Parts: sequence; C-alpha cells; structure tokens
Amino acid sequence: MTKAVLSALIRPLVEPRLPDWVEPLWFASKEQALEYVPEAEIGWFDLNEKEPMAEIARAATGLKWMNSIYAGLDFMPLDLLKERGVTVTNGVGINAITIAEYVVMLMLAHAKGYREVVRAQDRHEWLLDSPGKRELSGERVLLLGLGAIGQLVKARLEAFDMKVVPVRRSGAEGALKPGEWREKLGEFDWVVLAVPSTPETRHMIGAMELAAMRPNGVLVNIARGDVVDQEALVAALQQQKIEAALLDVTDPEPLPEDHPLWDLDNAQVTMHLSGRAQTKMFQRSADRFIENLERWRIGEPVQPQLDLDLGY
Amino acid sequence: MTKAVLSALIRPLVEPRLPDWVEPLWFASKEQALEYVPEAEIGWFDLNEKEPMAEIARAATGLKWMNSIYAGLDFMPLDLLKERGVTVTNGVGINAITIAEYVVMLMLAHAKGYREVVRAQDRHEWLLDSPGKRELSGERVLLLGLGAIGQLVKARLEAFDMKVVPVRRSGAEGALKPGEWREKLGEFDWVVLAVPSTPETRHMIGAMELAAMRPNGVLVNIARGDVVDQEALVAALQQQKIEAALLDVTDPEPLPEDHPLWDLDNAQVTMHLSGRAQTKMFQRSADRFIENLERWRIGEPVQPQLDLDLGY
Repeated sequence: MTKAVLSALIRPLVEPRLPDWVEPLWFASKEQALEYVPEAEIGWFDLNEKEPMAEIARAATGLKWMNSIYAGLDFMPLDLLKERGVTVTNGVGINAITIAEYVVMLMLAHAKGYREVVRAQDRHEWLLDSPGKRELSGERVLLLGLGAIGQLVKARLEAFDMKVVPVRRSGAEGALKPGEWREKLGEFDWVVLAVPSTPETRHMIGAMELAAMRPNGVLVNIARGDVVDQEALVAALQQQKIEAALLDVTDPEPLPEDHPLWDLDNAQVTMHLSGRAQTKMFQRSADRFIENLERWRIGEPVQPQLDLDLGY
Repeated sequence: MTKAVLSALIRPLVEPRLPDWVEPLWFASKEQALEYVPEAEIGWFDLNEKEPMAEIARAATGLKWMNSIYAGLDFMPLDLLKERGVTVTNGVGINAITIAEYVVMLMLAHAKGYREVVRAQDRHEWLLDSPGKRELSGERVLLLGLGAIGQLVKARLEAFDMKVVPVRRSGAEGALKPGEWREKLGEFDWVVLAVPSTPETRHMIGAMELAAMRPNGVLVNIARGDVVDQEALVAALQQQKIEAALLDVTDPEPLPEDHPLWDLDNAQVTMHLSGRAQTKMFQRSADRFIENLERWRIGEPVQPQLDLDLGY
C-alpha cells in the first residue's frame, strides 16, 4: 500500500475513485497533516491558506509526488522539493477553458460597445445605433503566451476568422520569435497577454510597447497585472494612444477604489474573475489526479509537471 | 442603356463602379423615385422608412430586378412583384458576420454574469467571485435556422466545444427535422432562434415550448420579435421557468419604456443592434450589387434571390 496524505477539501470527489493500492490519510487541519505527512509518498496539501501548505510540504520528508490544484506554487518551498527529488504536478490549465471564453467575451464586448448597451437597458433606453461597430472577423491578433490558455484562445479566435500570430521560442508555424514581436506591434489590432508571471515577463508591456501599438489597438491582459507597466498604460489610455485595455488582472489586486482605471471609458476591469467563472475546477483537478495515480502505478510520468527551476 | 433607379443612400459606394451599360437615375426622395421608376428595369429602392419603399415598388411597372440591402422584405408588395415576374435580390447574409459575433457575445456575457461586472466597475467595486459560472464548453445548443447567420453561429459555437444541433428540413448531418425539435427541447442548454420571419415561424416559441425547456435553459432570439410569444416569455422569465432570454429583437420595436422586459434580471435587451455593430454592411451590399450587374448583363442568375412564395 502506498500512503497518500490528502486534503479533506477534495475528499468527496477523490475518495470514491481511489484505487485499492492507495492508502489515503485524509487531513482536515494542519496539525493532522503534520502528524501523517512524514509517512507519505504522495501528497495533496491544498488548504485555503498558503503558509500551512508550505509547512506541511517541509515536513514531508519521504514525499515523492506532490499534487496541487493551484497553477502558481511560488509560495511553496520549491528549492527544498527539488533537492528532495519530489515530482510536482500543478493545476495549470484547470481554468484554461473559462479563461479562454472570458477573453473572447471581453473582445466581443469591446468590439460591439456592449457596456453601453447594458447601461442603456438599465435606463430603459432603446438605442438606435450600436455603440461599437468592430467585427472581430478579419482583424489581427498578437498572442503573447501559447500555454494551455493561449492555445484555447487561439482556436476560438480563429473560428471568428481572426488572424492570430503567437509568439513562440521556436518561431514555428507562423509564430514570431521572442525577439521579433516588439517591432511588429503596429501590425496588430489586438494584443493578448497570456504569459506566465516571471521576472522575465514583468513590465513586458511598457510605454515603448504601448506607443508602438496602433490607435485602434486593444490590449487584453489575462496574465498577471505586473506584466504591464500600469502607470504607462493609464497614460496611454488617458491620451487615447490606444483604443482600449481589457484587464482581467491589475497591479495591485484588488484595485484601490480611487484608481483612475475604474473610470476610464476605454478600460474594462474584470477583477481577476475569468478563472472563477466556472464550477468544474475541483472536478477537473480530481479527474487529473485519478488519471495520474494510474500513471504513477505503472511508472509513467504524471502530468502536468511543474518545472522546479522555472517555477511554472 | 439599361435604366436603373437607385437610392442616393448607396450612391457614394456604387456610382464610381457602375458599368457603362447602366444609366443610373439617382433619387433622394420618394417623389423623385416615383417620377423615374416607371422606366426602370433595375431598382434599388432602399430608404430609411419602409412605406415609401413599397409605394415606389408598386409604381415600378416595368421592373425586372429589384435589389435591397434589407434581408426581410415582408413590408414590400411581394405578391405584386411575383405577378410581374420581378427577380428580387436581398441583403441576406450582409450582416451575418456581426450578428453571429453578437450571438456568441450575448451567450458568453450571460454565462459569466458580465452585466454585473460592468455595473461593479461603474461602482468601483472589486468583486471577489464571478456572478456567472457557466462554461459554454460541453453545453448543448438547439439552433433553429441554418441560413447565412445560423451557419456562422454554428461554426463559432463549435470552436467553444459546444454541441450544436441544427434543425433542417433534410435532417441531414446530425440535424433534427422540423417536426422533431419540440419534443427534444429538454435536452438543450441553449435555444438559438435564427429563423426567417414568416407566418410559419410566428410564435413558434410559446408557452408550451418554454415549459419544455430546462430550468437552466437560455433562449437567444436574433431572428424577429414575433418568432416568440413575448407575453408567454415574460411569464416564464418572471417565474424563472427558464434561466434567461437574450433578446436582440422584441415585439414591438422599440420596446415601450414601461415594458417588463427592461427590468427583468434574466432578460437582456440589445435593441436590434446586432446587425448594426459593424461598418461594412453598405460596402458588402454595394460589392454584391456590382457583381450582380455583371451577372445580369451576361444572363446569369443574380444572387441571393428572395423566394417570393416563401418570403425569404
């Protein structure tokens, strides 16, 4: 029997489907987890607070595989886990479907001026013309980040007859290479940010990049707030250098109540809700874990694995 | 020379490209049109008001081909045009791209509770959870009407991994036949109306059909207001028998200021704007007309032709 220390948070979805070679040790508190965890080969330590998760991971001296529903695990002792040779699977892509749907919604809502329509309905006013008159069809999209989310965004936007150009290290399949996209910003109607948050991507869109965008250019950020230099963005929006910014993420979060982004007509702020606009995250995470248990049993690699050097 | 009586509304886009065998008679008023029209072989009578268009058409005793930017021409004397053997080309599909985009926008906006997010931004309030938590992915759509718009809607929704079941006379390719969809209404999460407005489709969704829908069912109407029995719909929405109605069209239009639909949380009213949310309609219509002139000259059928018996 292989001992697995598992959070009670996921018990209802996981317990009925556990194979018989797994001996589950369910915990409902940090103290319980710390008692069980030295014996564990497999661990799923998710709690609502992050610090206890890190403490449990540090105490898991015999751990071989750690799973989590979180995509970003920078709060965990990744160096220690690496030293111990622990395999880590994370929740990357668990929210990808709803986030990709959200991106398309934001783009369509901007294109058609839908916020004005909502406000007009609230006023009982029958508008005679559309406040927005863009068609996605035929427009060009620069897509920064072609991970789980970026790939789904690409497929959906292509169904609207958009031309989507991703940025990839390889430059393959019509993609631009990382060194190439800046000089081509003026060729795109939309710039979609779906990159991971790392030191490399911090402020990758700043005053220079915003100045290089077209006047009808729209920036869509569903990555992390700090991927954009937000002060430069506010200035560009105030001066209408670009047409709009559709921001699921901001820097900081929550956005302070008196922040200028709230009131800018050409900024949409959607409060990091894109990943939350679904109910299937726990189910998908449980499905993955059960599938990975079978891989673990027969010695195949579990997935998706966090790169403990890159941190994503 | 072939005389063509043409509305001044389309003059800027058409005049520079007219072939030399066409003698254009431009009109800016009904009176002018009535003076020219008895001589016309070709007519494009579009005005902003419909009654004068019908009057001009009735006076066009020598007309052989009538063109219009409108898709629905039920306000024109179709019986008389048929009797006279007039070929009629209409604007079907001219707006199809933007309407298809609008449908997806409305569905996504409902799924994610986006109207609440817009209102929260207006209040500077950082929402902590998404007011809507549906994913389009995996849900089932009944699509009534597989014309120019329906086909584009289908392709776009399928890119979101929705299962789209159209209704077609032939029943081919996974479609339901016209007699089959009513009994299967309970199998669908979304019902999208993209049928033409004809006596046959009037009130095709009434109390019985609404009662047969699922509690999470959402009705999307981008066809014509009278395709739905609106009184029955308001009752179903008030009693929350279905989850929502997304209505680009209503009966009547404009919707009276005190109509209950405006204030229903589960109704979206978008004021027949879907087709107007673009800038290419006149250009596309002019392109078609110029192409059709060449077909007319060499005796090939102009297109798309309105079926004067079916009315669409």
